[in-house]
Amino acid sequence: MSSWYHVAIAGATGAVGTEFLRVLERHRFPIASLRLLASERSEGKRIRFAGEELVVQRLTENAFEGVQIAFFSAGASRSRQFAPAAVKAGAVVIDNSSAFRMDPQVPLVVPEINIDDAQHHQGIIANPNCSTIIMLMAVAPLHRRWRARRVVVSTYQAASGAGAQAMQELLDQTAAILEGKEVTPRVLPHQIAFNLFSHNSAVNEYGYNEEEWKMIHESRKILHEPGLAITATCVRVPILRAHSESINIEFAERRPSVEEARQALSEFPGVKVVDDRERNHFPMPIEATDREEVLVGRIREDVSNPMAMDLFVSGDQLLKGAALNAVQIAEAMIARGWL
Amino acid sequence: MSSWYHVAIAGATGAVGTEFLRVLERHRFPIASLRLLASERSEGKRIRFAGEELVVQRLTENAFEGVQIAFFSAGASRSRQFAPAAVKAGAVVIDNSSAFRMDPQVPLVVPEINIDDAQHHQGIIANPNCSTIIMLMAVAPLHRRWRARRVVVSTYQAASGAGAQAMQELLDQTAAILEGKEVTPRVLPHQIAFNLFSHNSAVNEYGYNEEEWKMIHESRKILHEPGLAITATCVRVPILRAHSESINIEFAERRPSVEEARQALSEFPGVKVVDDRERNHFPMPIEATDREEVLVGRIREDVSNPMAMDLFVSGDQLLKGAALNAVQIAEAMIARGWL
Repeated sequence: MSSWYHVAIAGATGAVGTEFLRVLERHRFPIASLRLLASERSEGKRIRFAGEELVVQRLTENAFEGVQIAFFSAGASRSRQFAPAAVKAGAVVIDNSSAFRMDPQVPLVVPEINIDDAQHHQGIIANPNCSTIIMLMAVAPLHRRWRARRVVVSTYQAASGAGAQAMQELLDQTAAILEGKEVTPRVLPHQIAFNLFSHNSAVNEYGYNEEEWKMIHESRKILHEPGLAITATCVRVPILRAHSESINIEFAERRPSVEEARQALSEFPGVKVVDDRERNHFPMPIEATDREEVLVGRIREDVSNPMAMDLFVSGDQLLKGAALNAVQIAEAMIARGWL
Repeated sequence: MSSWYHVAIAGATGAVGTEFLRVLERHRFPIASLRLLASERSEGKRIRFAGEELVVQRLTENAFEGVQIAFFSAGASRSRQFAPAAVKAGAVVIDNSSAFRMDPQVPLVVPEINIDDAQHHQGIIANPNCSTIIMLMAVAPLHRRWRARRVVVSTYQAASGAGAQAMQELLDQTAAILEGKEVTPRVLPHQIAFNLFSHNSAVNEYGYNEEEWKMIHESRKILHEPGLAITATCVRVPILRAHSESINIEFAERRPSVEEARQALSEFPGVKVVDDRERNHFPMPIEATDREEVLVGRIREDVSNPMAMDLFVSGDQLLKGAALNAVQIAEAMIARGWL
């Protein structure tokens, strides 16, 4: 066990990669050396990190020599292609893609919820889907005490989940529409400015899209509840980088009171309760943006079901939904001597 | 019973008032004369209707002489103040505000669902809340055949629901943010550009806001189901004028198959099924805008509950959610000889 680490970021120039750099710097992550890896297109690009200028290198199978921790956020196909090489070179891979999440050999971890799962890995630890993480930050503390039986969730997802280009498309389309111009979607499949649409991922035979399917199956794995009933409707909205979710939880044992739920949520690390009924102040994407905590509010007893409760959450998709959670996995493993 | 009607619009210069004019003109509503009424501020304003120029008059208690049908959309307090005078003058009032909706003496009507309720009125017929109408256009045809037991709904509501000024605020704030300027909310309580927030209405002792409470109680009244279990989470999103809703319906008798549900929805007047899984084409606000039908899609069996089904709808808030529904009430009453 070393106390300073040779770190690599695969996909360093993307929306999540950029946040990796910011989080590592802000957290003063114990970095002995930092290798920035990206596709050929970004090779040679210079990026400042902690007062130094780093040169982006090309992501290849040979790029991981000497690396101890490799953060991957370059898409599922690149993770499948290059993560095994990183593991072979001796690195622990923390992978933000969907490539290995449902692999029974790969721990899928939200540190506040199931860090113990990270102890037994075979080189790869998976970072869950952003919507899954943000939902579970509110569901897990309640589930832990009162046992959730069923969750009905509808999402309000930011453009950032589709990458930096989708964020730029939202800005460009919005400007064009304000000027009265026609817009042609390029990155996202439909107009995103002043519009919303069902999540841009393939729909399966059950009528669920991939994002919804991830929320269902990843949540069960993280909570160790293979039988937890979940339905999800995932929607892309014209927001830049924080996801929101409307969550209905039905409990198996008993429904907590609003005060009990607020207390359990307040005590949970990484959650900030924003639930001011008088001032009509609840979680909002602009307040969740650039913030590490997931905001939780609208905590109320569901009048339609004596065992259910409603919540509303907002969390930064690029931070807790991606880069921050991955860095926290590494930090928690270091603190436990597992890295 | 006359075949041409003396009509008044109270609140003729607002967002809904403007749509009243467009719908009456497009539908060739049998108008003998049209009186446009508004607050002092708009008095004297000239508005074109069916090739003629009409002058806006001031909304007063004496403004309804000779009027047979009065469409009200000037806010609940003005409806309370002036609707009784209109009734006294002999008009039938179709009121778009919340003033009389839950009054047991006042029919609350979505024509496709419960037009028979309009037969027995005492001068006032209420137009339901926009989110309620748009939800029920999808729920009612399924409820009619398979009996809904519980509904969990989350909304994605456009700025138009807060009036023309809120729509302008969305545009102005968006332009300001694109120019890197700070914004100060004026009409809506929070920034609406690139943001979303819990609906801007007061929160009651149960933690529900007024909009959610309306969806619950108005739906029960319209469907004649005082025991129907409903929970709602109402959210304002940066969209101009079409509301969307994610709806989970639990059935009491049996869950229809996707095909049965699609069929029942397709046959329901005022509904257009938009449910193309292969092309990922589902209801979107930009396609619901300026359209009379409510779009329904994402029709699927809920994997979390063998009796439940998920849906997603978009409908024009100013049309079916307000002006169109009110005009349709009058048209249906005329067709039945009740007016």
